[in-house]
Amino acid sequence: MLRPGNTIIHAQQIIARCKRLAGFSEDQDGLRRTFLSPPMQECHREISQWLNDLGAEASVDAAGNLRGFYPGAEENSPKLLIGSHLDTVPNAGAYDGVLGVVIAVALLEALQGRRLPFGIEVVGFSEEEGVRFGTPFLGSRALIGQLDEELLNLRDAEGVTMRQAIRNFGLDPLRIPSAAMKSDALAYLEFHIEQGPVLESLGLPQTLGVVEAIAAQRRMEFEFFGCTNHAGTTPMNLRRDAIAGAAEWIVEVERTAKNVRGAVATVGQIVAKPGAVNVIAGSARVTLDVRHGSGDTCTQVTHTFVQLAEEIAQRRGLKLRRKELLAQRAIKMDAFLVEQIEEAIRNVGCHPHRMVSGAGHDAMILAEKVPTAIIFLPSPGGTSHDPAESVRTEDVAKALECGLQLLEQLSNSSEFQKRMCRA
Amino acid sequence: MLRPGNTIIHAQQIIARCKRLAGFSEDQDGLRRTFLSPPMQECHREISQWLNDLGAEASVDAAGNLRGFYPGAEENSPKLLIGSHLDTVPNAGAYDGVLGVVIAVALLEALQGRRLPFGIEVVGFSEEEGVRFGTPFLGSRALIGQLDEELLNLRDAEGVTMRQAIRNFGLDPLRIPSAAMKSDALAYLEFHIEQGPVLESLGLPQTLGVVEAIAAQRRMEFEFFGCTNHAGTTPMNLRRDAIAGAAEWIVEVERTAKNVRGAVATVGQIVAKPGAVNVIAGSARVTLDVRHGSGDTCTQVTHTFVQLAEEIAQRRGLKLRRKELLAQRAIKMDAFLVEQIEEAIRNVGCHPHRMVSGAGHDAMILAEKVPTAIIFLPSPGGTSHDPAESVRTEDVAKALECGLQLLEQLSNSSEFQKRMCRA
Repeated sequence: MLRPGNTIIHAQQIIARCKRLAGFSEDQDGLRRTFLSPPMQECHREISQWLNDLGAEASVDAAGNLRGFYPGAEENSPKLLIGSHLDTVPNAGAYDGVLGVVIAVALLEALQGRRLPFGIEVVGFSEEEGVRFGTPFLGSRALIGQLDEELLNLRDAEGVTMRQAIRNFGLDPLRIPSAAMKSDALAYLEFHIEQGPVLESLGLPQTLGVVEAIAAQRRMEFEFFGCTNHAGTTPMNLRRDAIAGAAEWIVEVERTAKNVRGAVATVGQIVAKPGAVNVIAGSARVTLDVRHGSGDTCTQVTHTFVQLAEEIAQRRGLKLRRKELLAQRAIKMDAFLVEQIEEAIRNVGCHPHRMVSGAGHDAMILAEKVPTAIIFLPSPGGTSHDPAESVRTEDVAKALECGLQLLEQLSNSSEFQKRMCRA
Repeated sequence: MLRPGNTIIHAQQIIARCKRLAGFSEDQDGLRRTFLSPPMQECHREISQWLNDLGAEASVDAAGNLRGFYPGAEENSPKLLIGSHLDTVPNAGAYDGVLGVVIAVALLEALQGRRLPFGIEVVGFSEEEGVRFGTPFLGSRALIGQLDEELLNLRDAEGVTMRQAIRNFGLDPLRIPSAAMKSDALAYLEFHIEQGPVLESLGLPQTLGVVEAIAAQRRMEFEFFGCTNHAGTTPMNLRRDAIAGAAEWIVEVERTAKNVRGAVATVGQIVAKPGAVNVIAGSARVTLDVRHGSGDTCTQVTHTFVQLAEEIAQRRGLKLRRKELLAQRAIKMDAFLVEQIEEAIRNVGCHPHRMVSGAGHDAMILAEKVPTAIIFLPSPGGTSHDPAESVRTEDVAKALECGLQLLEQLSNSSEFQKRMCRA
């Protein structure tokens, strides 16, 4: 196994590799590497070489996922999947997604050829961000057999269908079913940057996050309709001001969400018309994004926001239109894996922090088919989806140690043994 | 003088004439008649004919104002100006401005050739709304000698200078100084629709408004800067949400304004960025429009809003940028005329309601040089700047009666006599 002194050097190498992969970009200034884009080929070539050097033969499946298999002790050993995504948002940082793949490769390297009771499949998902086709998790959907015809018919901004994009990348869309996980898949593990400020805000020297669940999420759109009027001639008590109504509701949404432990609620968009300095607004359209680790609480809080909007609209003589945009249930991570990770984090001298992931991840998709878990590394400043996105070398080192410790624990766990027998 | 039975018929004719003039439009669907536009020529032709038929010779001054002079009893009688504007906003109603000119013509008609101790000059101002050159009151500015070189160099959306537009209309910009009022101008009187809901909301059978002052006005722009963050991964207590900060301020602005008698405050524009459903807004820009009959109160209330914005920004860890857009002092109407109008309204069996005009009018400009007054007719539903803008026949009839009564009072007033001697 690795010794503490070593891991800092490995962590530095991991960070250097992430930075190197960030050079494979569609844009000259800034990183942008979308699904099936030419720089994704270069990215695959680079990582494949690292994998092949470690005896984990790399290949690209029909959905564009990079996959490298490091065999287990026996020929038919079941396999643990470890990975994350290789695509990025526009103007991205170097670590979102990529870090999880590079850590997976580093774990294989740290094993130094040692065989475990299970094989390890490193997966670099082709698509998670939803940038090119407006729909996210395309890579992981292929692994659970849900990259279907409807999705393949989606078109990107240039009008290219996903089916054609797959062909253009040199792959065969007819072979997509073969990308699905087989029954020998034991579990899926993902290392990912937190992309939020929670771990850092704990103020502890070294913390890694253990994701218990991916939050349920509801998105809605509300439009308040009042009466467009002259800002100078309409007394305050005779107004039906759509902006003022929306503002009152936004304040209530924030106040309410603050009082529900673990809830986040965001009004990220507001568009008011006619939008003139001297005209009382006749309409104000606002969006709502609500998340919580419990689906029931998420629904309940959202319902409160709807009631608040109705009450405010009625009191102010405004009309209200509302529309549901998204309702996504909470996804629980595997309880056994969560405990094992927590133990592993402690065992490497780190503080484990159980948390709900407010953001979606490939793990959310994989969890539909296999036991799944996520380990979060702190995001300095909470910054992500930005060139300033970063990760601390010490945290990467601890994540690597934790991963190796976890592999050790799982290799010796009777519970995991049972799971392997069932696989 | 007119008898009550007659005035309803005259009022119907006034309304029919306003509707007729609304046919002279730049747009096929909807009324739009901007400064020096071709339909303004047709409008002038029509009104000139009415004026000429009444022995009030019509002409168009170098600023495009239509002027018709109805002589007084003596050759050098000083003159009372009565008018309003003939230009419109886009998608306008038929009465804003135009009604005041048509009532002025009807007053001459009702005099049936009778000569008063003063002449009457009907003025149809060429520009009040600021649509074409982005600057309002161009017509009335010419009457006070302030349509200067700087204004003449303004360009419209097609790049045509005002100077050229005046030439294109067949007028000579060099003659603009001759459009200014002479020392024989006694006073200016304007009939105008209220463009607000105040008079109607009094719930009295017949009310006319007597404007005591045109409100002081301040316009500002504020921008709250927070931190763009992920809506799912940023806990409520670690956010610096620009929309939430702006919303809190908007609620406070409304609450504060409601508690200051006679104040109106409007946030009519809000633009938040990046404006995505799942991203906490990093910036929110809002406008503020504050008006009050007292300039001091207007300034004081605006100052309170600035303090509120600063306090909210500081408490929330937001940065605040603010900019003054406009500061306009209150304009008092002439106290003697206000009293005379009040008396005239009572004398024709109507309820006079003293009020502050929240909107600017040509009278505001004329008031810099001559005693000025405005009579407001109720706006059903408070509606204006909209095709649904209307006026009740009974109110037009009472306005006409009131106008004649006022002319009678002024003809017999010793105070006005004194003013005439000084003119």
